[in-house]
Amino acid sequence: MQSDKERITRLLKTAKGQLEGLLKMVEEDRYCIDISNQLMATQAILKKVNAEILHDHIHHCVHGAFGTEEQEEKISEIMLIMDKLTK
Amino acid sequence: MQSDKERITRLLKTAKGQLEGLLKMVEEDRYCIDISNQLMATQAILKKVNAEILHDHIHHCVHGAFGTEEQEEKISEIMLIMDKLTK
Amino acid sequence: MQSDKERITRLLKTAKGQLEGLLKMVEEDRYCIDISNQLMATQAILKKVNAEILHDHIHHCVHGAFGTEEQEEKISEIMLIMDKLTK
Amino acid sequence: MQSDKERITRLLKTAKGQLEGLLKMVEEDRYCIDISNQLMATQAILKKVNAEILHDHIHHCVHGAFGTEEQEEKISEIMLIMDKLTK
Repeated sequence: MQSDKERITRLLKTAKGQLEGLLKMVEEDRYCIDISNQLMATQAILKKVNAEILHDHIHHCVHGAFGTEEQEEKISEIMLIMDKLTK
Repeated sequence: MQSDKERITRLLKTAKGQLEGLLKMVEEDRYCIDISNQLMATQAILKKVNAEILHDHIHHCVHGAFGTEEQEEKISEIMLIMDKLTK
Repeated sequence: MQSDKERITRLLKTAKGQLEGLLKMVEEDRYCIDISNQLMATQAILKKVNAEILHDHIHHCVHGAFGTEEQEEKISEIMLIMDKLTK
Repeated sequence: MQSDKERITRLLKTAKGQLEGLLKMVEEDRYCIDISNQLMATQAILKKVNAEILHDHIHHCVHGAFGTEEQEEKISEIMLIMDKLTK
């Protein structure tokens, strides 16, 4: 993985902490809107992490694969990811 | 919370398990695309949970607030959620 | 419709102008990325218009339906829209 | 543009027709929810067109740029598009 490992780990741990909070909120029958807002906050973190990882992947891995026998595979992978993101 | 507590808890636990897996993948410097796909799978679960919670919230809480002094608050809450979803 | 008619009409006309531009770009075999960026700009306008219309709908129509026999219908409509937005 | 020109043109013309319909609906003060549903249908078409254009762009243009002095530019373009899609 090309992204800043420490930063990505910190973001994922925050998301995990929020998820543990969500499990507690559900357990305690907390108000739906509060749970929904926490869910959307967690989704926003994961979205940011994914954006960063994909950005750095293209910048390093895809770029680095140019002219090597890996380039075909890299292109197909990016096409699949793009298809998911534009679905 | 109005949704099926067991189902929501199970889905959130799955998402949490995936997040733990993600932390491990980052720790082990796994391939970016594999991490991205796992991230998008976790996002999909949270999206489904949020959809269910909001659906049931409108069906029960907003509906139940009709004719009570809570109705104004319920309306504003739904407007804020809708604004976030359409952003 | 509850929203500012003039504003919504102006935004939709801008989107329509962009769509006409897109048809021309496709006709002239313009570069894919330029077409994609124009598409995303048009999508952003439609998203903004939809956000505004839904916001004002809840604020006026749903709110106004409270205590009338229309309230059930209004609630189901919002649930269907919310389901689409969270899909 | 690499995509099927006829197909893309047909889809864009459908979207344009819907947009003209939307302008009429707004003019006639049609019901908000009907307008919102038509907006989301038009957005879905533009999303599909964008997905197809980006898919074919990577498959042809980015792929074709490998080993040429265009490859840097192609990579940066895809990174910018990816950043927009993951925002």
